Amino acid sequence: MQDKFKLGDFYEFKYSFSEKEVFLFSELSLDKNPLHLDKEFAKSTVFGKRIVHGMLVSSLFSGVIANKLPGIGSIYLGQSLNFKKPIYFNQELIIRVEIIKIRTDKPIYTLRTTCLDNDLNILIDGEAIIKKNSN
Amino acid sequence: MQDKFKLGDFYEFKYSFSEKEVFLFSELSLDKNPLHLDKEFAKSTVFGKRIVHGMLVSSLFSGVIANKLPGIGSIYLGQSLNFKKPIYFNQELIIRVEIIKIRTDKPIYTLRTTCLDNDLNILIDGEAIIKKNSN
Repeated sequence: MQDKFKLGDFYEFKYSFSEKEVFLFSELSLDKNPLHLDKEFAKSTVFGKRIVHGMLVSSLFSGVIANKLPGIGSIYLGQSLNFKKPIYFNQELIIRVEIIKIRTDKPIYTLRTTCLDNDLNILIDGEAIIKKNSN
Repeated sequence: MQDKFKLGDFYEFKYSFSEKEVFLFSELSLDKNPLHLDKEFAKSTVFGKRIVHGMLVSSLFSGVIANKLPGIGSIYLGQSLNFKKPIYFNQELIIRVEIIKIRTDKPIYTLRTTCLDNDLNILIDGEAIIKKNSN
């Protein structure tokens, strides 16, 4: 299966999160931080307005990995995440996943997982470790 | 604000994920890995049945951090995650967040974030870095 992919292969797409998605994620994660939910509270913070949960945005990496790179059969072994800048509701995001290491002894991939804004500022950065089973 | 918490402070609770929650998270994350959704596919894998997305379970850490420890005003700077064992639908989980480092120069906390089963096997392990603003 490893032969299908090589170092430097990547997949990227544009996306944005609506209020509805943020509210749904609040229910799933039990994360009711008013910074995500409460306009008035968010105004009083350094961010000035409500921001999307970093873990919600990062869940898109899981989506790319499962669907595209390396795709079906992927088993998540690990993920690191650095939340560098706030992500606002309806902000256009670039989600990018790139293969940066392929082990030769086992079907284990390291992927760089990045969320960028349209000016290519890094908003979230990290790495995923994925095992790709053959089924 | 730092004085409110000390090293070793922790919060833990029990939780489990239903099929409904897994399906909702599939929509939000775009992660349609059949390992999470398709009973027949999951049977054919090493896990034997459908498993919950690691990123969905990990989102509970975000919930604890925002609501409890260190609570309102928390800003997520980073999260590492090691997915050690599969988590099944309706499996009883212990979610635990513990303060393992508090910086003296800045209100920045390191938390150990763990998901355990009832036999205290570690299913997910990692660390969160949190800044706690004063509002």
